[in-house]
Amino acid sequence: MVKKVKVMQNVLKANDMYAEQVQLLLKKNHIKVFNLIGSPGAGKTSVLESILPILTKAGKKVAVIEGDCSTTRDADRVAALDVSVVQINTGNGCHLDANLIFKSLEEFDLKKLDIIFIENVGNLVCPAAFDLGEDAKIAIISTTEGDDKPLKYPRIFKKSDMVILTKVDLIPYTNFSMESFTEGLSSINTNYKLYPVSNTSMENIESVADYFLK
Amino acid sequence: MVKKVKVMQNVLKANDMYAEQVQLLLKKNHIKVFNLIGSPGAGKTSVLESILPILTKAGKKVAVIEGDCSTTRDADRVAALDVSVVQINTGNGCHLDANLIFKSLEEFDLKKLDIIFIENVGNLVCPAAFDLGEDAKIAIISTTEGDDKPLKYPRIFKKSDMVILTKVDLIPYTNFSMESFTEGLSSINTNYKLYPVSNTSMENIESVADYFLK
Repeated sequence: MVKKVKVMQNVLKANDMYAEQVQLLLKKNHIKVFNLIGSPGAGKTSVLESILPILTKAGKKVAVIEGDCSTTRDADRVAALDVSVVQINTGNGCHLDANLIFKSLEEFDLKKLDIIFIENVGNLVCPAAFDLGEDAKIAIISTTEGDDKPLKYPRIFKKSDMVILTKVDLIPYTNFSMESFTEGLSSINTNYKLYPVSNTSMENIESVADYFLK
Repeated sequence: MVKKVKVMQNVLKANDMYAEQVQLLLKKNHIKVFNLIGSPGAGKTSVLESILPILTKAGKKVAVIEGDCSTTRDADRVAALDVSVVQINTGNGCHLDANLIFKSLEEFDLKKLDIIFIENVGNLVCPAAFDLGEDAKIAIISTTEGDDKPLKYPRIFKKSDMVILTKVDLIPYTNFSMESFTEGLSSINTNYKLYPVSNTSMENIESVADYFLK
């Protein structure tokens, strides 16, 4: 059931011109691509683990590009769900670049795909600056990171169509205020869709999956 | 009681040669400097809030340099403890650079200081690459980020003398394994000191303060 996980070792070079090529290639193949951005441990892989079985069951053909400084741990977790995965290890690189995405696409049979998820390197700052040819950027932030993060790291929250707030099951044990969080978020982005979820209790996971089924 | 918080707006430029100048200047003034690195929401500011009163009570003269993409929130929290603070807002910059630190030092009366803490931009990747003239790098990581982070983001854990593991009070509500965490950490750094703490229950906070009193 586990598909092959390919490791592409690369030193990142800024190369934004590839983003357009990625976009053209994917549009030609009617593939939607989403760029998932969040801190280490925000729950990016967990969200994928939660929604991928729902999307697959609904008939969507999904692939994932995993970005990490090191290891194939996230790719292994996703590959276990019978989804094609390419792992990009950036070494000390702090974000994924469009030329890396362009090269990764060679590893997939694009005619057989509907959606590609790109899980960016765990980092709330740098990945926000690099377009990868995606249809939308998605910010993933956990309640345990604190309710002040949209104001302190505005760029990604400004650029995201969808904001997934993970670990809502831990709110009772923290000082996270949903009011402060949405207030901060609304002050920098007036057009976001917020999905408060838990990958433990699976709260609201269906709604997140629905976003990608539309 | 609240001292003035100065905001220095800067676009970051790589400039490692300043690190040596920072080091020389601080050594001359018998000041120890520590570079705190961790993800957004790892608890860097909270650790400072917990230990600063202990250090001040013990007679240490402490100052803080706060790095953030945006806002003076962290600086305001620290300044409330009657500690001199300089805020550096990096805009979209993902790390602090030694030339920014060098300029910030002009804001302090160095003859009256024993310790300077630099709270880097919330980011587990980029800040690890930039020496700021510090005596030691300190990694701050929260249990809610997951036990796999040392293996996935090895650079900072390799370079840190001290690792502060925050939010241990939340372990019962997560799948964090202390065994996996220390196993991963030990595989990339054989000479670290680990401090598992909670800024909520104040567990082990005295031990962390002791490290800086030695």
